Amino acid sequence: MRCITLTTDFGTRDWFVGTLKGAILGIHPRCRVVDLTHEITPGDIRAAAFALAASRRYFPKGTIHVVVVDPGVGSRRSPIAVQTARGFFVGPDNGVLSLALAQETVKGIHRLENPRYFLTPVSRTFHGRDIFAPAAAHLSRGLSIRRFGPEQGDFVRLPWPTPQAGRRAIVGEVVYVDHFGNAITNIASSSLRGRTCAVYSGAKRLAPVNDFYQSVAAGQPVAVPGSSGYLEVAVNRGSAAARLRLRVGTAVAVRW
Amino acid sequence: MRCITLTTDFGTRDWFVGTLKGAILGIHPRCRVVDLTHEITPGDIRAAAFALAASRRYFPKGTIHVVVVDPGVGSRRSPIAVQTARGFFVGPDNGVLSLALAQETVKGIHRLENPRYFLTPVSRTFHGRDIFAPAAAHLSRGLSIRRFGPEQGDFVRLPWPTPQAGRRAIVGEVVYVDHFGNAITNIASSSLRGRTCAVYSGAKRLAPVNDFYQSVAAGQPVAVPGSSGYLEVAVNRGSAAARLRLRVGTAVAVRW
Amino acid sequence: MRCITLTTDFGTRDWFVGTLKGAILGIHPRCRVVDLTHEITPGDIRAAAFALAASRRYFPKGTIHVVVVDPGVGSRRSPIAVQTARGFFVGPDNGVLSLALAQETVKGIHRLENPRYFLTPVSRTFHGRDIFAPAAAHLSRGLSIRRFGPEQGDFVRLPWPTPQAGRRAIVGEVVYVDHFGNAITNIASSSLRGRTCAVYSGAKRLAPVNDFYQSVAAGQPVAVPGSSGYLEVAVNRGSAAARLRLRVGTAVAVRW
Repeated sequence: MRCITLTTDFGTRDWFVGTLKGAILGIHPRCRVVDLTHEITPGDIRAAAFALAASRRYFPKGTIHVVVVDPGVGSRRSPIAVQTARGFFVGPDNGVLSLALAQETVKGIHRLENPRYFLTPVSRTFHGRDIFAPAAAHLSRGLSIRRFGPEQGDFVRLPWPTPQAGRRAIVGEVVYVDHFGNAITNIASSSLRGRTCAVYSGAKRLAPVNDFYQSVAAGQPVAVPGSSGYLEVAVNRGSAAARLRLRVGTAVAVRW
Repeated sequence: MRCITLTTDFGTRDWFVGTLKGAILGIHPRCRVVDLTHEITPGDIRAAAFALAASRRYFPKGTIHVVVVDPGVGSRRSPIAVQTARGFFVGPDNGVLSLALAQETVKGIHRLENPRYFLTPVSRTFHGRDIFAPAAAHLSRGLSIRRFGPEQGDFVRLPWPTPQAGRRAIVGEVVYVDHFGNAITNIASSSLRGRTCAVYSGAKRLAPVNDFYQSVAAGQPVAVPGSSGYLEVAVNRGSAAARLRLRVGTAVAVRW
Repeated sequence: MRCITLTTDFGTRDWFVGTLKGAILGIHPRCRVVDLTHEITPGDIRAAAFALAASRRYFPKGTIHVVVVDPGVGSRRSPIAVQTARGFFVGPDNGVLSLALAQETVKGIHRLENPRYFLTPVSRTFHGRDIFAPAAAHLSRGLSIRRFGPEQGDFVRLPWPTPQAGRRAIVGEVVYVDHFGNAITNIASSSLRGRTCAVYSGAKRLAPVNDFYQSVAAGQPVAVPGSSGYLEVAVNRGSAAARLRLRVGTAVAVRW
């Protein structure tokens, strides 16, 4: 059985997420649905793209990932479904799927145009319920992705900062700040190759790089190889974002 | 298999919602449980009633909807279960089920009085766990609603504002503000009949009525036919509630 | 089928909880997973321990409870799994399981050391995903707890305040403040034996003890036998924590 994950900016205060699940269960009553998160900041396509890319590999083969962060709902962007070697990705073609897809082997990209698989009447403001969730439910029942609509050759790619590696440093930036206040960078942990190094913001040394949070005293900063594969700046039992004033876009460098 | 939805004001910070699910799974281990929302403002019967009414139609036939927004727990209001042509509704008879039931064909209303279907000892403060969740679990296993207790003829109805239609305007009010700051009114989208019109607050023009959020520039107000069937006032990529100072109870008019 | 409960301090904003579930479903696709809460204050072992102890009895026999509140992740504390007469408990051996285990009949305590049951490579910062969730998934499939690693004789116990009973009073303290602002004490409701009494903070009378919230007018304080078995101080339709300035650690006495 294929499970479905949901990533949205709907919040959990209203009935919107529940309604997505109702729409799915109406089509496939035994489907397993897992919430990735519904607390993406409204319209924050980058954060949703990163969350999906950071977690997709931990789900079983055949999983169907649905992302509804869709500030352009009702206008021109296309709703798409993408089949990869590992599973399926369903959402608006606005870049939100692109970081995850860059890590997958894409087999086919289809526009969701066949009204037979819509919940009708299709609203202009809630394609999550009327187009994306039904498509995922049909995929979970085994429907071929080709049934949804015409194939297209490529998907919209989100601009994403690439770290710059030099002889004595790698320069990158913070790309995500998590619930604990850990600042996740775009510098792959593997690129440090075990060198003794430290993280800087301009000339200011922020933190040594070490293996785990508790390698420094409580309240002290430390950079660790994060669970998503990227270097992250943390404060042991505290918030690095608050303490070191880090946010998405802050430039950081690793020097050795 | 019948699924169960849960709508409460318990929040998600404590163990209360998990405990409801434990109580359900103890009675029916294979039951599917879907969270509608647990973030109703404590005691806000109107918001819970609206959330349920707005979403019930998207769940499969036979679904059992449980609502525990129950400021009178332990006092006089009756716990009830209601069977309709589409499914079941379980909760306190304090009006919280009434908006949804007004859209359904009611088949029978029974008081939850049979202690055989309670989790004992029944606490005076947590009927969700001890009375409502067990009743829903038994219904999901196929128990007849008649087993719970005596039938009653009617349910408590929530006072609800009715829009007033004139020759050149419909006057209504904001009945719900969602996570995005969209202000949902009690004016049915269908009542506009496609006329070119705009939304006013007193003499002040708030927004044109159009089809979707992106029909105006970012930051601009627009009223759209919302996904629940009612006109809602929005700001493209912003919060109408904050920008236009709208809240539940604010009077609005559509004029053409 | 054994279900799994999850209690963490991960929050629900990021992809961490979803990733735990992905790791579980990758091992046991049909497993039922229930969220107890993910909103424990980061590192608050006491709150997590109390939440688990207050709710474990409401889950079916055989349930596997996973707790990941683990400020020492990657350092010395051991990951353990505990089998009891009722079910299983999985988490770091930092005291977070101890309040629940004190209410259970412990059958065996095993360290999670067998890398065969890890998700590899094991990160230094996310044992929830790499060690605890996989262990729970394997237990849910019926794996013997003995396979995880060596048995140990005891588990780390959290210091926990014991109420002091006198001739005319019981002195205790607030141990948890819930979403509604109810202040749950460590005084067992059963210890009052139905006596007419009231709750004091020092010389100040806070509230009468009664059966349910509505026994006093809206806005008035009342202490009730809470749903977890302990006396709790509440304000009818209000927040006792805010109104009476109660927080975890505040001393309270019941006098008769």
